Amino acid sequence: MNSPLRSVPLCHVTISDAFWSPRQEAIRTVTLPAEYRQLADTGRLGAFRLQWRPGDPDPPHIFWDSDVAKWIEAAAYSLATDPDPALERQVDEVVDLIASAQQPDGYLNVHFTVVEPEKRWANLRDWHELYCAGHLMEAAVAYQQATGKGTLLAALSRYADYIASVFGPEAGQKRGYPGHEEIELALVKLYRQTGEERYLSLARFFVDERGRQPHYYDQEAQARGDDHGTWHGRDYRYNQSHLPAREQETAEGHAVRAMYLYSGMADVAAETGDESLMAACRRLWANVTERRMYVTGGIGSSPEGERFTWDYHLPNHTAYTETCAAIGLVYFAQRMLNLEPKGEYADVLERALYNGVLSGISLSGDRFFYVNPLAVDYQAHFHEMDLFGRSAVVPERREWFGCACCPPNIARLLSSLGEYVYSRGDDEIYLHLYIDGQADLDLYGLPVGLVQETAYPWEERVRITVQPEREAEFALALRLPGWCRGPSLAVNGEPVAVGEVAREGYAYLRRVWRVGDVIELDLPMPVERVYAHPEVRADAGRVALRRGPLVYCLEQADNGPNLEDMRLPPGAGLRVEWEPDRLGGVMVIRGEGRRRDRAGWEGVLYHTDGNAEVPVPLTAVPYYAWANRGPGDMLVWVRE
Amino acid sequence: MNSPLRSVPLCHVTISDAFWSPRQEAIRTVTLPAEYRQLADTGRLGAFRLQWRPGDPDPPHIFWDSDVAKWIEAAAYSLATDPDPALERQVDEVVDLIASAQQPDGYLNVHFTVVEPEKRWANLRDWHELYCAGHLMEAAVAYQQATGKGTLLAALSRYADYIASVFGPEAGQKRGYPGHEEIELALVKLYRQTGEERYLSLARFFVDERGRQPHYYDQEAQARGDDHGTWHGRDYRYNQSHLPAREQETAEGHAVRAMYLYSGMADVAAETGDESLMAACRRLWANVTERRMYVTGGIGSSPEGERFTWDYHLPNHTAYTETCAAIGLVYFAQRMLNLEPKGEYADVLERALYNGVLSGISLSGDRFFYVNPLAVDYQAHFHEMDLFGRSAVVPERREWFGCACCPPNIARLLSSLGEYVYSRGDDEIYLHLYIDGQADLDLYGLPVGLVQETAYPWEERVRITVQPEREAEFALALRLPGWCRGPSLAVNGEPVAVGEVAREGYAYLRRVWRVGDVIELDLPMPVERVYAHPEVRADAGRVALRRGPLVYCLEQADNGPNLEDMRLPPGAGLRVEWEPDRLGGVMVIRGEGRRRDRAGWEGVLYHTDGNAEVPVPLTAVPYYAWANRGPGDMLVWVRE
Repeated sequence: MNSPLRSVPLCHVTISDAFWSPRQEAIRTVTLPAEYRQLADTGRLGAFRLQWRPGDPDPPHIFWDSDVAKWIEAAAYSLATDPDPALERQVDEVVDLIASAQQPDGYLNVHFTVVEPEKRWANLRDWHELYCAGHLMEAAVAYQQATGKGTLLAALSRYADYIASVFGPEAGQKRGYPGHEEIELALVKLYRQTGEERYLSLARFFVDERGRQPHYYDQEAQARGDDHGTWHGRDYRYNQSHLPAREQETAEGHAVRAMYLYSGMADVAAETGDESLMAACRRLWANVTERRMYVTGGIGSSPEGERFTWDYHLPNHTAYTETCAAIGLVYFAQRMLNLEPKGEYADVLERALYNGVLSGISLSGDRFFYVNPLAVDYQAHFHEMDLFGRSAVVPERREWFGCACCPPNIARLLSSLGEYVYSRGDDEIYLHLYIDGQADLDLYGLPVGLVQETAYPWEERVRITVQPEREAEFALALRLPGWCRGPSLAVNGEPVAVGEVAREGYAYLRRVWRVGDVIELDLPMPVERVYAHPEVRADAGRVALRRGPLVYCLEQADNGPNLEDMRLPPGAGLRVEWEPDRLGGVMVIRGEGRRRDRAGWEGVLYHTDGNAEVPVPLTAVPYYAWANRGPGDMLVWVRE
Repeated sequence: MNSPLRSVPLCHVTISDAFWSPRQEAIRTVTLPAEYRQLADTGRLGAFRLQWRPGDPDPPHIFWDSDVAKWIEAAAYSLATDPDPALERQVDEVVDLIASAQQPDGYLNVHFTVVEPEKRWANLRDWHELYCAGHLMEAAVAYQQATGKGTLLAALSRYADYIASVFGPEAGQKRGYPGHEEIELALVKLYRQTGEERYLSLARFFVDERGRQPHYYDQEAQARGDDHGTWHGRDYRYNQSHLPAREQETAEGHAVRAMYLYSGMADVAAETGDESLMAACRRLWANVTERRMYVTGGIGSSPEGERFTWDYHLPNHTAYTETCAAIGLVYFAQRMLNLEPKGEYADVLERALYNGVLSGISLSGDRFFYVNPLAVDYQAHFHEMDLFGRSAVVPERREWFGCACCPPNIARLLSSLGEYVYSRGDDEIYLHLYIDGQADLDLYGLPVGLVQETAYPWEERVRITVQPEREAEFALALRLPGWCRGPSLAVNGEPVAVGEVAREGYAYLRRVWRVGDVIELDLPMPVERVYAHPEVRADAGRVALRRGPLVYCLEQADNGPNLEDMRLPPGAGLRVEWEPDRLGGVMVIRGEGRRRDRAGWEGVLYHTDGNAEVPVPLTAVPYYAWANRGPGDMLVWVRE
């Protein structure tokens, strides 16, 4: 295994992109304040005062701590790139509040301090102590990096030390591991920030113990006197503890849990060079991305268990595709990409980011999807609510959720977007994402500035200006997106034969770079018709439209209701139009579709002459932008 | 309203049909004995001994009585056409057992005699006392007609008298009505058999009271101290008591309940000439058959509540389409047809009978479907069982069910099939179904024999020989099936212009009929492609194959798995082949379909060049015969 690439610290990347900057601005100005209010109003912040007493209403929930932690992390990323003294004061106060809740032994969890103190570590399978600890660790690292303030890092190091005393292979220690993974990747972050090997060891311990026999959750349940038959997870696939991590072949169970585990496995593999762990990561990656991933990068096919189901089972209306799961796939992809720079990882990262992640937040920045379906029949939602009091699909974003993992998760991803754009290798710089802005990298002591000028994902041209402090030989590895059939390259106006420099999805431009060298990359982005594998029953006979990295969809707002009745005939021409005033500015796809002729159907349910069609205009908008114009039908996979 | 037609008593109709006779034979020789064993083995028969005591296992369930009643009814119909002393003795014993369970006051219900005697009539909304009473009444009438023995009729008349003393508009009487309708139509049968007007009055009372305000179920729940919020039915649409019967516009709630109510409404309308009730029946008929009925005649779109949902909501994989509901639609259709002889009623009757009803029983006669989906993805069933411990669709017929309504219901319908073939009007004889056999009718004192010779539904020709006792003028009204585009007719070899004698789906041949007159009816039955209304989202872009009255389907046994991947291109030729050894002898439809080319899909989930197809042979078999060759995928609506 080669030494892994390193992401570039957030503070060295500036984004000034027409596509992303408004989203980041919305995170700063709308999302973070709105989420702070929600955290305060729902009692999540105040809970850290530890004043709840038995008999009081609204006991702090087992995962509340993590919601606050993710908000701190998101705010910290924002502070790292866009200093804001008022926000920093607000974060400082929250951090102080959290630190004040730490117990003398280092323990730091609201629920199990004030609500059920006697149950500390009693149910790792279902309760979220280690998960919350992980999120607090991530917050602590981000806060330290952004502000230089060590309050939270000190608290969490102390907590991590305490956890390391409780869990481990020694006699008297628990050989348990989290029912909701997260702390594994967080401990690696803590290790990287502090240099303390024991945190990496603990991460590795949690990965290694998972799924071993005798099974910790069996023993733990027995100790509690629980009847396993009533467990909501049904079997240990639910939390990926059905097998030791290295023996897992398929992506199973709760999709967010899976992504966090696989990310943690990749992190441990990156730090330890553990080839067997790396091999497991590759297998699980292949299973997810070749058989269990929606075209939007969403994952998790079933609402029941918020989970993976089986190969090629990708139903559209009932897709769960939790925002957090797509975010988790970005995390996993980023780690795999740094372990081995292959375009397939970056392609999936980009696919999820521009589609299944971004759909999770409204253009306004204050409404969120937990579930991101690929098809909505709005009347079905309406009728299901009427008949059954609930609906398989909720086709409107909400301000907040009782289980509020997604809103702060998308905030922390989008405010840390700069970390995903570049990586540094030994003497290579990788450009993974094309985002207008600049970066100041350090390549073995050589400062290298890069300026990206682009209107990606709307326009095909990317112009990169290279600014090494002094002329020097190194490689720039430019990602050649998997969706692009004919990229072209020029350096200082001289064409470069892409085929000669391309390897595994990247164009390697190795040369002596001089200040002001200019790379021009053209990524032709015609509208493409995408088809799913023949085993994907839900998409049989259907086509999805894609342009560049963006997957498109039909919405009722443009096409009327009942999109199933609409068809895009093979060969029908499609054109794009830039519409600056629609949905914050989008490239719209237009073409001529077909709908069935309604003549002759009055009072008739079945008809032998019933397939006459009439032409209708068809308008598709980017999937990420759907559900910003009121409720209605939506469809990604259109009948062809 | 004209005076309604009358069905022809079962004992006057002989069926010697190559299609139906083997099914009736299986009912007699396999189904009835198998069901008797189930009734005995599960304790349903023994329960009538009233020996269950608190603390004993397996308390008799609230609907057990009805299972036994339907078996008696089915056996009685069989005895009416095919005397069988051994079966008759068996029925006699069961009848005596039931009669022995009657209480001194006339009450006759096992559960509320031995298990919860204090709860008699306490929860009409959910418990099934009046429903069980109705089925016992139907059994009593059938038994009397078949055997001439009055034991059960006497018991049930006494029970009906007792019920009439409890329920009614007078002071001190309950103004309640059944939560599961059935007794309404049964009381009309009892009235017709006994001539006692008070049974008709009670039927009318139950119909009239339904859904009135103040709502009886509200009052009843209040009296019990029940919290309505926890009621499984959620609102009174579930049992069609949301509005008075005459004000109902759409078919709502539990589909079997709805069919039994509408049948009872039509019966009361037939006997009373009540035009407002008749108008409600017509409206509800139109809503069911124009917006809420599957192409198989199945009804009930949702497993949750086994119910109707909303207009054009006809999902195929999750179709509930309970066998009993299709049977109920046959009952409703027969009553509407006798009220006003229109082809639309007979068409639906035939559609349900040959498809959605008949699929409910295996060719062997001893395995049953409760739910009759129109599409099965067998691997989904397998994986759902594995992941969730249950499955939305159970793609194999079972020997019996805990809730065993369907097996005896299909037995009683198929053993009484002769009642559905003809009707008598004032001086008309209607032929609704083309079934080889003969009938002896009485037309105002004139005996008229009719002989049908046909290989329907496989062959197009029907030959009818008319045998009036003496020559006489009357009309023979021959149904012109709605599925048939170009029927032709001849009498004694002389062509008759169908257009000149056709009215509302029947060809009226009025003339002086002589012994031996021969009618030849040709019903061309090419394979037809059927399309669903554009609002039926589940069938968009899909085609169903139909030949004559039979709807076809694809099965994995003939076409391999993953039928969604299969396509029947528009215009592809289709031919039929008689296969005597397949599925008991069926006409198979064959053609050339398409499947996607698997080349290039290894390790690829989405592809821009992914819609290449290869030709594959396509074989369709009649829907009624599916699931007789082991488990596998099945599909009615094929992509076109």
